[in-house]
Amino acid sequence: MTPARDDFGAALERLKADRVSGAAQLGRQALIMLLNAAQREEAPDAGALRLTLLDRAQAVASARPSMAPLANLSRQWRQAVEAAVSDDPERLRQVAVDAADRLIQTVDTATQRACVRAAAAIGPGRTVMTHSLSSAVERTLGLLHGSGVRVVVTESRPLDEGVVLATRLAGMGVPVTLVTDAQMALAVPDANVVLLGADSLLPDGGVVNKAGSRLLALAAAEAGVPVLVVAESWKRRPAGLGEPVLEEMDSAEFGYPIPDGVAARNVYFETVPARLIARLITEEDG
Amino acid sequence: MTPARDDFGAALERLKADRVSGAAQLGRQALIMLLNAAQREEAPDAGALRLTLLDRAQAVASARPSMAPLANLSRQWRQAVEAAVSDDPERLRQVAVDAADRLIQTVDTATQRACVRAAAAIGPGRTVMTHSLSSAVERTLGLLHGSGVRVVVTESRPLDEGVVLATRLAGMGVPVTLVTDAQMALAVPDANVVLLGADSLLPDGGVVNKAGSRLLALAAAEAGVPVLVVAESWKRRPAGLGEPVLEEMDSAEFGYPIPDGVAARNVYFETVPARLIARLITEEDG
Repeated sequence: MTPARDDFGAALERLKADRVSGAAQLGRQALIMLLNAAQREEAPDAGALRLTLLDRAQAVASARPSMAPLANLSRQWRQAVEAAVSDDPERLRQVAVDAADRLIQTVDTATQRACVRAAAAIGPGRTVMTHSLSSAVERTLGLLHGSGVRVVVTESRPLDEGVVLATRLAGMGVPVTLVTDAQMALAVPDANVVLLGADSLLPDGGVVNKAGSRLLALAAAEAGVPVLVVAESWKRRPAGLGEPVLEEMDSAEFGYPIPDGVAARNVYFETVPARLIARLITEEDG
Repeated sequence: MTPARDDFGAALERLKADRVSGAAQLGRQALIMLLNAAQREEAPDAGALRLTLLDRAQAVASARPSMAPLANLSRQWRQAVEAAVSDDPERLRQVAVDAADRLIQTVDTATQRACVRAAAAIGPGRTVMTHSLSSAVERTLGLLHGSGVRVVVTESRPLDEGVVLATRLAGMGVPVTLVTDAQMALAVPDANVVLLGADSLLPDGGVVNKAGSRLLALAAAEAGVPVLVVAESWKRRPAGLGEPVLEEMDSAEFGYPIPDGVAARNVYFETVPARLIARLITEEDG
């Protein structure tokens, strides 16, 4: 076991265990892991290095099956590594590092552009309701800060990452109201718009996002409140892969002992169908 | 301050503070309070006793504004006290005790009859999903125990009374699955029927029930799963009273410190509109 291998393995475990970061943050993290692998993995020759790096890309791609971005970004990086035709391991290493660096820049630019578009679509002085913690939603709300935006945030059980978002928004001085997930239908009529992020974009126009997103979209539809989704285009799940896997986590996350004889389910993600989404905003729009 | 007055005041505070019992349990509790008042309140003559008892009825009626049963049952009891035409305080006392006792029996009979009807409507071998903790739902599921019934229960934040229900059902040997409120839309397609209780029945066929009930009904509608409501007819809210009050409780119930600058809302009840309810089952049916 080389130190590089240890580092990668530990980072991969963190990637798998991270319950708070959204797909965009994890995608960026995965690219940094691949960049580090390109810089550090030891290998006797270019062929061995290539195999190791492709193996790393595969490990990242399959780490979080509900999150298309990990598969998409690592596939793009893998293609760059595969396309490199050098017998010089240091040259291959540089190609792989450059590819990761370029993808990170692309990702950052895409996120910023999508959020600017989303903020423009919402406009000033609105009450925005959201669920869970999406880095794109947080950034969009940050862009709207100072425009008179008000925010309603759900807890997002079991780990309450909505409380994290509420804390950050309040720290910025944004007026923010926190509600339990169960109060979604009570709270959404007070909002002008629902803004969701996405962990994956589906070929049919639906999205995969944190469990509870579909409930909020259903309540919004009933209340006549439009649902916007802000996400980067590289979250698209390719067609032909069938139904997305919806990851299930340990029920220890409930935070109390599950009673004897009770089976607890802790499915993290669900689909929001296209018919409940008024507009999907990516960096590619308009 | 007489001891009787102290007892009543303490019981009234418990009635107001009780966050776990449903309207049926609280209605029964209110009748017991009125029965005790009829037995114990001191008064110099029948007129003074009558005024004291009517005052007690009024205090009970307004203790929980989201719960029509308290107003309904105390009104029926008040009418019996008002109708008593005796100058003998002991005779008046007996009328009031008998009225409370009769209402308690009526209530118990009604609950049992409604639950038997609900169990028959559901039939054996079904998967039933519910939200919160309704004594009528619990009793109905108890009647179905042994018929192959399976139950899916939501936590029901903020106080997790769904966990109480799950624990009781598991103790009876009923297969039960516990999910977070956010997983309602994920879980409801596995159910054959959604069964809800009600804190009040509205004149338009809708009901008032714990926050989250409307979300579950919306998710059930989308999944094509019928929603049954089991409740006693004395939960009907009279027409002409306007919109029901939806009680809001302290956000300390969230169980963690609300972040600085964040406004937390803890509204307990919401309406489920008639269009989302396939059938309302009371003791009066069929």
